[in-house]
Amino acid sequence: MQDASLFTLARRHIESSPLRAAKYYPLIIASQRERLMRSRNLLLLGGLLTAFPAAVMAQDASLADQVAANAATTSFVFNTLLFLIGGFLVMWMAAGFAMLEAGLVRSKNVSMQCLKNIMLYSVAGLMFWAFGYDLMYTGVDGGWIGSLSFKLSEMFAWVPGGAVTTNPLGYDWPAAGGSEGGDYSVASDWFFQMVFCATTASIVSGTLAERIKFWPFMIFVLILTGILYPITGSWEWGGGWLNSESYSNTFGAEFSDFAGSTLVHSVGGWAALTGAILLGARKGKYVGGKVVPMLGSSIPLATLGTFILWLGWFGFNGGSQLAMGTITDAADVSKIFANTNLAAAGGVVVAVILTQIIYKKIDVTMALNGALAGLVAITAEPLAPSALSAILIGGVGGLIVVFTVPLLDKLKIDDVVGAIPVHLIAGIFGTLIVAIQDGPTFMGQLIGVLSIGAFTIAATFFLWFVLKITIGIRVSEEDEYVGLDQAEVGIPSYPEFVQ
Amino acid sequence: MQDASLFTLARRHIESSPLRAAKYYPLIIASQRERLMRSRNLLLLGGLLTAFPAAVMAQDASLADQVAANAATTSFVFNTLLFLIGGFLVMWMAAGFAMLEAGLVRSKNVSMQCLKNIMLYSVAGLMFWAFGYDLMYTGVDGGWIGSLSFKLSEMFAWVPGGAVTTNPLGYDWPAAGGSEGGDYSVASDWFFQMVFCATTASIVSGTLAERIKFWPFMIFVLILTGILYPITGSWEWGGGWLNSESYSNTFGAEFSDFAGSTLVHSVGGWAALTGAILLGARKGKYVGGKVVPMLGSSIPLATLGTFILWLGWFGFNGGSQLAMGTITDAADVSKIFANTNLAAAGGVVVAVILTQIIYKKIDVTMALNGALAGLVAITAEPLAPSALSAILIGGVGGLIVVFTVPLLDKLKIDDVVGAIPVHLIAGIFGTLIVAIQDGPTFMGQLIGVLSIGAFTIAATFFLWFVLKITIGIRVSEEDEYVGLDQAEVGIPSYPEFVQ
Amino acid sequence: MQDASLFTLARRHIESSPLRAAKYYPLIIASQRERLMRSRNLLLLGGLLTAFPAAVMAQDASLADQVAANAATTSFVFNTLLFLIGGFLVMWMAAGFAMLEAGLVRSKNVSMQCLKNIMLYSVAGLMFWAFGYDLMYTGVDGGWIGSLSFKLSEMFAWVPGGAVTTNPLGYDWPAAGGSEGGDYSVASDWFFQMVFCATTASIVSGTLAERIKFWPFMIFVLILTGILYPITGSWEWGGGWLNSESYSNTFGAEFSDFAGSTLVHSVGGWAALTGAILLGARKGKYVGGKVVPMLGSSIPLATLGTFILWLGWFGFNGGSQLAMGTITDAADVSKIFANTNLAAAGGVVVAVILTQIIYKKIDVTMALNGALAGLVAITAEPLAPSALSAILIGGVGGLIVVFTVPLLDKLKIDDVVGAIPVHLIAGIFGTLIVAIQDGPTFMGQLIGVLSIGAFTIAATFFLWFVLKITIGIRVSEEDEYVGLDQAEVGIPSYPEFVQ
Repeated sequence: MQDASLFTLARRHIESSPLRAAKYYPLIIASQRERLMRSRNLLLLGGLLTAFPAAVMAQDASLADQVAANAATTSFVFNTLLFLIGGFLVMWMAAGFAMLEAGLVRSKNVSMQCLKNIMLYSVAGLMFWAFGYDLMYTGVDGGWIGSLSFKLSEMFAWVPGGAVTTNPLGYDWPAAGGSEGGDYSVASDWFFQMVFCATTASIVSGTLAERIKFWPFMIFVLILTGILYPITGSWEWGGGWLNSESYSNTFGAEFSDFAGSTLVHSVGGWAALTGAILLGARKGKYVGGKVVPMLGSSIPLATLGTFILWLGWFGFNGGSQLAMGTITDAADVSKIFANTNLAAAGGVVVAVILTQIIYKKIDVTMALNGALAGLVAITAEPLAPSALSAILIGGVGGLIVVFTVPLLDKLKIDDVVGAIPVHLIAGIFGTLIVAIQDGPTFMGQLIGVLSIGAFTIAATFFLWFVLKITIGIRVSEEDEYVGLDQAEVGIPSYPEFVQ
Repeated sequence: MQDASLFTLARRHIESSPLRAAKYYPLIIASQRERLMRSRNLLLLGGLLTAFPAAVMAQDASLADQVAANAATTSFVFNTLLFLIGGFLVMWMAAGFAMLEAGLVRSKNVSMQCLKNIMLYSVAGLMFWAFGYDLMYTGVDGGWIGSLSFKLSEMFAWVPGGAVTTNPLGYDWPAAGGSEGGDYSVASDWFFQMVFCATTASIVSGTLAERIKFWPFMIFVLILTGILYPITGSWEWGGGWLNSESYSNTFGAEFSDFAGSTLVHSVGGWAALTGAILLGARKGKYVGGKVVPMLGSSIPLATLGTFILWLGWFGFNGGSQLAMGTITDAADVSKIFANTNLAAAGGVVVAVILTQIIYKKIDVTMALNGALAGLVAITAEPLAPSALSAILIGGVGGLIVVFTVPLLDKLKIDDVVGAIPVHLIAGIFGTLIVAIQDGPTFMGQLIGVLSIGAFTIAATFFLWFVLKITIGIRVSEEDEYVGLDQAEVGIPSYPEFVQ
Repeated sequence: MQDASLFTLARRHIESSPLRAAKYYPLIIASQRERLMRSRNLLLLGGLLTAFPAAVMAQDASLADQVAANAATTSFVFNTLLFLIGGFLVMWMAAGFAMLEAGLVRSKNVSMQCLKNIMLYSVAGLMFWAFGYDLMYTGVDGGWIGSLSFKLSEMFAWVPGGAVTTNPLGYDWPAAGGSEGGDYSVASDWFFQMVFCATTASIVSGTLAERIKFWPFMIFVLILTGILYPITGSWEWGGGWLNSESYSNTFGAEFSDFAGSTLVHSVGGWAALTGAILLGARKGKYVGGKVVPMLGSSIPLATLGTFILWLGWFGFNGGSQLAMGTITDAADVSKIFANTNLAAAGGVVVAVILTQIIYKKIDVTMALNGALAGLVAITAEPLAPSALSAILIGGVGGLIVVFTVPLLDKLKIDDVVGAIPVHLIAGIFGTLIVAIQDGPTFMGQLIGVLSIGAFTIAATFFLWFVLKITIGIRVSEEDEYVGLDQAEVGIPSYPEFVQ
């Protein structure tokens, strides 16, 4: 019998005869006990099987932990993968610069340009490992330079402490670092940031080609990649004084440079400019107020170099999202790919149309540099602009190339490959145009451009100057005449063709 | 004392002395209360701690949601990553075509060929953004062309509505699209599809090299990439009338073209063929019934181009799986990589052996084109064939090259780089051989080949014809003689070597 | 009213007046019932809604299954993706070897070198599919060679059994394989392992350039990639007798070769060495005790090739982690990227400094080979070394190049591109230096180097010898003089420049 009806019977008698009602109590109690037992059985069925709800709970907790751990792993791998893919694409840009420059110098300097590019990439890697990465990212804390404590202490310790005793020769990468977008491998981050540093040095080598001595150039690269680039880099990307939070406290304006129009490209551009001024033009370049064309030895190599750079730029800008573990991040990386491509396309089309109009011929080197200038221009903010904005920003890059390449020649600044228009001027434009967006202001962008520019101009001018008055930076006139391949390398670039 | 025994005692007295039994009631009740409390404690332990089973349940529901969300995120990122990696590999093919063509034209036209290739890739990107992507994929619905409504309304609006107010210049990519294989970033899909469109234009530039004017060619590219390619593309990949469902309703036969043997390669091939016919052969190519060899200026560049294309094809075919978030998809992408490589290898080996037998020398350009023809042939179905089938399909591609390159010369159709045999003839073969599989039929494949061929022949012939009778498509005889580098570019490709 | 207070009232009366107390019983019971009902409601809310805790439990079990399945899928895709990305990067190395060799041979042999490289990559792919992969990885079980049973049975069956009936031409890849690091696609593994096999053959072609006949070389490649490389490969990577477990049982010493300093590079190097000895030097290379320099035709192509190889090496070493689905694996892959880059940089810098000191000029070909030797040296263990160790190991590679290239010339072993110092000597060094780590011992490493060396020397010497005495391996003196491009290819590499 259901305890509900027993209970009803009991209630019916409770007023009239408590004792009669009491007869039902045991039954009620028995029924309730049975019900309780059934409840217990429920608990046993659901609870004992799962070692009671607490265990269900515990299992849920462990499953939830598992889910969280899986998500963290997946995010870690995605972020790391973005750095690795982005990194190898940007590393590939080193080959792009090598081919671009090998194609745009005369054949008597091609071997040298190849040598410089592989050497500067190597030196940048070593310096960014020994000094740069720490100076740029470790303990900057709103300041203007990081500290070396992190790595050098281990690097020169013959037997480092901790778990790395199997490595007799020092510093080991920590497995993981973290950021807003989740954790990632520190070594992957180092790799990605290192190839950016190397890019800065690559920019310089093109401008100063065909007349700079090998070793002074390499000393410059050493200091640029180990110290100078990391210093200005630390101001913004390392969380230094220029970084939005501390900076907006000081100047009330935010500075934004997504992938380095200013931090990478203009820094390389300024270093190239001060070098070009102190080094002087190639002999015979400016004669009697006239600009003597010195044609590049191989347009297809220059074209190949440009395509390589274009390809690498997807890593350069896309990887600068710094995370790929969420739908938002992956969608952002994709938008960056699309905008980066459209900006380069805009640069090419504008340069082609303008040279057709102005010169009645379509200067292929302008088209190539138009692509690069478009890429540099979009680099400060490849994510926020709409597609059409990206095309227009890149198009202005192409316009900059067409109009500032001759301008530099008027100023008798001899930039062999056009790196100053492409990386410096388009880089400044790209940084300033970011102010069109909500958030960053023109003043904020300008302060970033000017402060990094001022430091880099001063530091590189001083460095070039010291090199010039000490070991000298320019080859002898005779060496320049016979070419650096013969003078310093000893291996002609195309021995069967022209030499 | 256990309530069980209390209960037993109460039951024992219940008949004889209800009142005596009643003495036990409070104890029983107390005991039961205690038990109930203990049950409650269980609930508190397992329940209250988890805010009761309902909360456990709710937590489970939220954990399940979390698990589903994580899986969706992971799948989204994988799919998007496939588009991005596939996309940058196919973008790299633009460099491959540039190098292949720069190597196979004479040095007096190399700068022009470089210029054309970087310009056509740029134009294709812009046109596929402005028109192509929408015409190909938006609202085709079994029809023969998509609509532009989606994007143009925003693109030319100075201040678009909605959430993109930070972008003063129009259209922004939606974050996600979806397909059978899960969601992906729309921008990544656009990027991937765009590089396919650019490939189609690249095919044309090789065939028509050394004699076509720059600007008419670019107008052709504009219309090919912005309108013509998207139209035939929409028929199949955009869900148009040729797509299996609607199509099989009409003709009772399915058409299948996995990565575009027909939709990409034969379209480019047909456009090249109609152009070659209307443009005519290079001066001096066919003299008195004889074919005068016009050797390419640089075999290593042509080889480099072929290797680049081979590399890019892993993205072309592998990325066309369109999803990578499941074990099946990842395994399919892998099989596509293996088959793609084996088909190219088959093409090379067959071309090498055949040229050895026929010509007693091993024509390296045939070997290179053999690789490409093998790649084109497997593109219509790189997933279903076994490894051996892939090798044989690719091998037939090599055979096609060896036998149809001379055939075209007999027809006095001057195809400078051999793009028609490689992309058109091997593309048709590759599409038809799909019928060997279960599912697709020969009739279905043939209807696809013929309908897309008929449209493309008609449209491109008309377009070339209009260009020819209006602005003209061919350079003057003198310009052809001195070369396009001097005539239209003004920058010699190798100024120190031959000019 | 709360049952707690009812209960208190009842207890207060229970001693004095059981009957009075009894009045409360129904209320208490009612209250308890209500409470019980509430408890049941809790159970119903939390339990019935979830079909009781058992169902919660069941749901948890299915959710846990789901979580595990998702994790397995993610891991599978990551592992497969590592093989695919690593694979296409190593595939790209085939282009690197082609460009390096095209740049370092004289222009009269450039077309041939291009042809050989694309052909050997094709042949390697076909042979590694037909024989190599099985011989290397199937059923080696501590032995010295695998078996072919796995694949050939299906490959030549016109209609294979099982699920692949849609593939009339044989063998289909199984979807998944497994290892410590989780499952992966077998086709992706094949692709990755195949490009390693091709690398071995690429090494040989450079050394023997400019004088070996095409077809005998290809027969050699056929056997090297289909049989010889897989045999020694199976000893270690296929789980053969040299693999740590079985091996340490035999010799009590472990052999370790992470990515193939010995298994890939020294095998290629030994094959090149025996070939160079049997083939003899190029005519005019060693005249009257003097070494006549035979300069490469294009330093920029050689530089491009080196950059390509450097890029590809991230796939070569990074992919050899064989898994990327965990934080540890992804961090390891990253560290491998960093170490690989640092080792190459070390090789470049050492070679540049040494050639400056020794020759007073900076030999760019030494710098390029220094990078490659650094890469080969770190390949045997790119994960364990600290960054500084990696630099030093790579630096020794650079040193090896500078000192052993002239040494080979003294021995009149004519190695056109310097592949023996780079791949063989640096490969041996890299393998032995692994013993500096905990675990591997010098004896273990030495036994690996010697056993694989002995087998490869014997087998390749025999093979070259048989080829030499049967069909001959060397072109005629006249063919060598006019160049292989004219003699065997019929297509000059640069027809307008030098020929």
